[in-house]
Amino acid sequence: MEIRIGLIGAGWMGKAHTNSFVNALLNFGPEYGKPIFEVVSDVSAEAAKKASETLGYAKWTTDWKEVVTDKSIDIVDIATPNAFHYEIAKAALENGKHVYCEKPLTLSSEQSLELAEIAKANGVVNYVGYNNVMNPASCYIKELVDTGKLGDIVGFFGTYAQDSLLDPNLPITWRHINKYSGSGALGDLGSHLLSVSQFVLGNIESVNATSKTIFKQRPASPGSLTLAEVENEDIIAILTNYENGAVGTISSSRIAAGRKNYLTYEIQGTQGTVQYSLERMNEVNVYFTSDDSADRGFRTVFLGPDHKGYSAFYPAAGIAIGYNDMKVLEAHELLSALSRGTAYVCDFTFGAQIDKTVDAILKSAEQQQWVRVNEKGGVIA
Amino acid sequence: MEIRIGLIGAGWMGKAHTNSFVNALLNFGPEYGKPIFEVVSDVSAEAAKKASETLGYAKWTTDWKEVVTDKSIDIVDIATPNAFHYEIAKAALENGKHVYCEKPLTLSSEQSLELAEIAKANGVVNYVGYNNVMNPASCYIKELVDTGKLGDIVGFFGTYAQDSLLDPNLPITWRHINKYSGSGALGDLGSHLLSVSQFVLGNIESVNATSKTIFKQRPASPGSLTLAEVENEDIIAILTNYENGAVGTISSSRIAAGRKNYLTYEIQGTQGTVQYSLERMNEVNVYFTSDDSADRGFRTVFLGPDHKGYSAFYPAAGIAIGYNDMKVLEAHELLSALSRGTAYVCDFTFGAQIDKTVDAILKSAEQQQWVRVNEKGGVIA
Amino acid sequence: MEIRIGLIGAGWMGKAHTNSFVNALLNFGPEYGKPIFEVVSDVSAEAAKKASETLGYAKWTTDWKEVVTDKSIDIVDIATPNAFHYEIAKAALENGKHVYCEKPLTLSSEQSLELAEIAKANGVVNYVGYNNVMNPASCYIKELVDTGKLGDIVGFFGTYAQDSLLDPNLPITWRHINKYSGSGALGDLGSHLLSVSQFVLGNIESVNATSKTIFKQRPASPGSLTLAEVENEDIIAILTNYENGAVGTISSSRIAAGRKNYLTYEIQGTQGTVQYSLERMNEVNVYFTSDDSADRGFRTVFLGPDHKGYSAFYPAAGIAIGYNDMKVLEAHELLSALSRGTAYVCDFTFGAQIDKTVDAILKSAEQQQWVRVNEKGGVIA
Amino acid sequence: MEIRIGLIGAGWMGKAHTNSFVNALLNFGPEYGKPIFEVVSDVSAEAAKKASETLGYAKWTTDWKEVVTDKSIDIVDIATPNAFHYEIAKAALENGKHVYCEKPLTLSSEQSLELAEIAKANGVVNYVGYNNVMNPASCYIKELVDTGKLGDIVGFFGTYAQDSLLDPNLPITWRHINKYSGSGALGDLGSHLLSVSQFVLGNIESVNATSKTIFKQRPASPGSLTLAEVENEDIIAILTNYENGAVGTISSSRIAAGRKNYLTYEIQGTQGTVQYSLERMNEVNVYFTSDDSADRGFRTVFLGPDHKGYSAFYPAAGIAIGYNDMKVLEAHELLSALSRGTAYVCDFTFGAQIDKTVDAILKSAEQQQWVRVNEKGGVIA
Repeated sequence: MEIRIGLIGAGWMGKAHTNSFVNALLNFGPEYGKPIFEVVSDVSAEAAKKASETLGYAKWTTDWKEVVTDKSIDIVDIATPNAFHYEIAKAALENGKHVYCEKPLTLSSEQSLELAEIAKANGVVNYVGYNNVMNPASCYIKELVDTGKLGDIVGFFGTYAQDSLLDPNLPITWRHINKYSGSGALGDLGSHLLSVSQFVLGNIESVNATSKTIFKQRPASPGSLTLAEVENEDIIAILTNYENGAVGTISSSRIAAGRKNYLTYEIQGTQGTVQYSLERMNEVNVYFTSDDSADRGFRTVFLGPDHKGYSAFYPAAGIAIGYNDMKVLEAHELLSALSRGTAYVCDFTFGAQIDKTVDAILKSAEQQQWVRVNEKGGVIA
Repeated sequence: MEIRIGLIGAGWMGKAHTNSFVNALLNFGPEYGKPIFEVVSDVSAEAAKKASETLGYAKWTTDWKEVVTDKSIDIVDIATPNAFHYEIAKAALENGKHVYCEKPLTLSSEQSLELAEIAKANGVVNYVGYNNVMNPASCYIKELVDTGKLGDIVGFFGTYAQDSLLDPNLPITWRHINKYSGSGALGDLGSHLLSVSQFVLGNIESVNATSKTIFKQRPASPGSLTLAEVENEDIIAILTNYENGAVGTISSSRIAAGRKNYLTYEIQGTQGTVQYSLERMNEVNVYFTSDDSADRGFRTVFLGPDHKGYSAFYPAAGIAIGYNDMKVLEAHELLSALSRGTAYVCDFTFGAQIDKTVDAILKSAEQQQWVRVNEKGGVIA
Repeated sequence: MEIRIGLIGAGWMGKAHTNSFVNALLNFGPEYGKPIFEVVSDVSAEAAKKASETLGYAKWTTDWKEVVTDKSIDIVDIATPNAFHYEIAKAALENGKHVYCEKPLTLSSEQSLELAEIAKANGVVNYVGYNNVMNPASCYIKELVDTGKLGDIVGFFGTYAQDSLLDPNLPITWRHINKYSGSGALGDLGSHLLSVSQFVLGNIESVNATSKTIFKQRPASPGSLTLAEVENEDIIAILTNYENGAVGTISSSRIAAGRKNYLTYEIQGTQGTVQYSLERMNEVNVYFTSDDSADRGFRTVFLGPDHKGYSAFYPAAGIAIGYNDMKVLEAHELLSALSRGTAYVCDFTFGAQIDKTVDAILKSAEQQQWVRVNEKGGVIA
Repeated sequence: MEIRIGLIGAGWMGKAHTNSFVNALLNFGPEYGKPIFEVVSDVSAEAAKKASETLGYAKWTTDWKEVVTDKSIDIVDIATPNAFHYEIAKAALENGKHVYCEKPLTLSSEQSLELAEIAKANGVVNYVGYNNVMNPASCYIKELVDTGKLGDIVGFFGTYAQDSLLDPNLPITWRHINKYSGSGALGDLGSHLLSVSQFVLGNIESVNATSKTIFKQRPASPGSLTLAEVENEDIIAILTNYENGAVGTISSSRIAAGRKNYLTYEIQGTQGTVQYSLERMNEVNVYFTSDDSADRGFRTVFLGPDHKGYSAFYPAAGIAIGYNDMKVLEAHELLSALSRGTAYVCDFTFGAQIDKTVDAILKSAEQQQWVRVNEKGGVIA
């Protein structure tokens, strides 16, 4: 089955999506759907043309509307900056397209919920690219939880820290302006932790957050002496209550010296604990209270053929998969849903729930109160 | 100079204190004060007598008042259950004794402040045994912060987790009853993190906490079918704002499967980060942004003669000190203060500030609000 | 520039080579040579046909001679079992083809040297696939050594251990039969360490080895009660003297319980040490004696844009590359050599030197003597 | 039971032994023998006198012969430089004393065997201070091996590396002169690994070694321009065959940049592997092939009450013991043997076997041959 792809956004993420489709085909074979790279669009004609040539798209355009209305297209793949997701996804859905949208779904939970409902009504595949979900480690961790091997889950403690914006001389970018980004460290980084905790534990019920902008101004452009305002948080810390009764913390920083891609979390249950860090992405640490007392300790389990998704890459355990491979598994999940109708997790409803949580966190940080995630994000007091 | 010690409380901690004095003498020599083990008291005559023989105290008694009024005694060493600290310490201070009190100082910040004031008025040495403060690792970390090597401090993220009370069949103890313990995981474990963060960063300004009691009832006695109520928290999670502008989280659990003595924290600054875990107590991980970009990474620094306190034990780096050695350094700090008048950190004022923070955290968890630590622990809203 | 590839051997490694060419194109772009997948051959018609379809080769054949004589072919890519490398590579070279041969080059150093000479005489690109060489970590480590940052190199200590053949019920395969494999753990695993040490330190001068076959017989086929002889070593341990004056050990096992892909080594110099493990392939641990004494420790350096090869994949440090990515960098090195005439390390002379070292090690283990690697592998006595 | 101790050698190690006796008493109680510190001797009157005062010995002398003939003395405790062990131990044994001798026993296996035989004939307690043997980690590891949990043992791979002598400006000491030290890195460091491997696996059958002196000359005294010859090895690497059929490597360096107290080893069996590093002395890593495939990994087991010796120090797992605590357990083992007649491992026969292995290794390195450890250390060829 051929699956015709129209890509919107020819930057780094557009390239990453395209590569993922190519490698999904190479690793899983055409039976899960053979991607055909039909058209690429970008606001920059130069970028669109170049992407067409290097990534192998048959046509290019500067008008994304041509893509969403193109009758030959099966999937509209959205890899634009965040602020454009809503409009494009909505138009694609209304044209009956399957939609693959990079995370976050939109900049507001209302818009995200609207998209989720249109998608459901239209019966199309709708996938939001939270890449950590299809990480074989995440799937293994979810299995540990779901099978009860860890007992009742009582805590989730996670951090996603980077130092990508630690240098105060780095200029203002769209990431610092809320109308483009929605939020700072929370949306960019913390939302990945939300995707994992939601995937494994289920929904968060209420949150209480505090945030801080350490570098309040940045050069308006590289090297400029003019300073521009940073509108959103460098650091955020959140208390969480989960619907399943667990408690925990989530924190995130984009200015954490020395932290490169430090997404790490620990899930504690009454019969075991699992701990994971993306910087050592091939290792899951798990502890079972059922082990003999003298020999009990966290096990460093290397990903291998026993873990969902891994076999696509290697025949034996301990051979390192990389970050891109998570995206390949995501592309495969999407292709499989489309060609075989298989179930998948990261649909727009899943993405909208993350956006609701993000909204509640931002509201909590602003109002310095506990806020419920559902029930209209109401303040608790 | 001979320093005559009267020990009150002949249990595990009383033994640990005594051993620490012995080893302080062996490792630092008598010039810092030679401890003379004068008298030990315990409510149990048997325990007092046995401690006298095995720990080498000249006399024993079942009446602690004899100790605090004994003219030969220089230091009253309090190693009783927490609930008795206040009364004994007050009496000792009023008798002009130097006082060494195991943590926490008392069960309420009001009592602790009162003791701190009496101690100050009397001009005696007053030491509360937060053992992690004199850990050479803590002193090194404080030095990294104080010298500005890490830049401005922006975050403190810490956890102290154990699984000592994970087994639901473990019976009720004084730790579960607030009139004896004051609180659960917070006072027992989390307070150690408070001592370190207060030592290194200074005071916490405001807190917001949530707590959970997972095992709400426990056998009234070992094996009993009668269940008794657990009055305090198994897990606590706290947002913190520091007076110096930093933010962070502190969490603690006494039911964290697989965690044995997992006191771990990370301090992030604008020019570096330091990370530490007591389970690997001889290693401090530190990152400097000033290192060459290609060669930059967290350094695993083994404690050694360059770090304060270590040389008392070993002549070269990397030879493991243990948990007891922190207590030896504490005993030495106390003896040194007494014999030479040297300054020290863990006085009753320091301990009282921790108790104020504990009170604010408990209030916050109860009222589900931000609470200020000083200014009478007022709610912020 | 188009580069037409003829692949011989359509198994797992043939697929891996093909994927690497595809991803080299995607990540580096066509300017380094655009691979055209012209023809694939395999002894199995079915395998050849399937590979043609799924990997995208224009033609297929069961006769490798058609490939080496095909005028349209630029590179002959050899991914057959080891025993066939020599004959095919020789024929390809004699037809003036560039040759990309999976490691090891051949089963004897004489054959390998012969191939190296023919290649040199013909002036073609000749590349042997020791994939760890192009690992950005290896290149960074070589740079640390070459720039003198570690001082004079005095020791190399390495191990490559797996437990892939620990189960005694696993049947005999070609890996256990010397005429197909040449040797056991040494050729399969240990040779990778030889490639890295040769790349970074230069040639080994003399060796002294001991080896052991723990499982001397295995089922002749899966589940069979008939046992067949295992002809080569499960474990090998080697003392090494390097031409540059360093000493060390290399060991390898294919039956090391719990070790999955445990290629690890440490290079010690008079001013620093570097340590690496492929199981944590994105981390290089390096120590400099020039750091301040109190702050000195092994730095955990995450691979990033500062390290050669990494930027092809990601724009920031700490995003995990995987095992396949080493192969992509290898394919790129080959394409670049071919399209631009850039220098490269892993030529047949490099491969032949490894084979000479392997021969000397096997001779040493057999004769229980020190053996020189060069000077005809003479015994030292 | 009172046990009267005469200490010979009042340096750092004499102090360490004394402290260990004190802490053995404090932690195990007097029922295992109450040490009485009777007399201390040192060639330096000043050192002897000072040790008497600070360590609490009743008398002091500059003549060790007074100690070995003193009728009140039960144990002669030898903490002199290595070269004097033989003469003193022999005299002590001949006077019917129990003897506690710091490692190594003597500088030659002949002398060591002679002492072992005299000790056996006299029926006295004879203990050589290989402190790593009584490490609770070593005892746990031996138990893992002895109970068969790891299957048949097939490999032992160990390293003991330090950088204590990396600085070329450090002057000559007795450690560099063979008549005082016997050997270099081997005797000082490597012998500790020999003690552990001998304890856990049993005797080594044959060895093949190579060694290297990197810094061949050093200042004759601190800051001197006169250079003196270094007589022994900075680095040694050894192939080993064990009597039980296992193979392996042992290496040691005293100039390994960044390595502080890096005693590390791995024992591989057919059903599991155990790995340990003294730099993280409270953690044992163990892997069992019997664990479920998907959940299998090295377990990081923290030492705790389940492991022999630990309970003397702490009531719960994960509270760090330190290096000195191994020495306390050693003192306790000795006292227990003396007071209760309990069996112990580190007797002079054990020490003599290590010395035989050391002799064979040195001979092998000199002759560049395999050498058998027993059968008069014969060359194999």
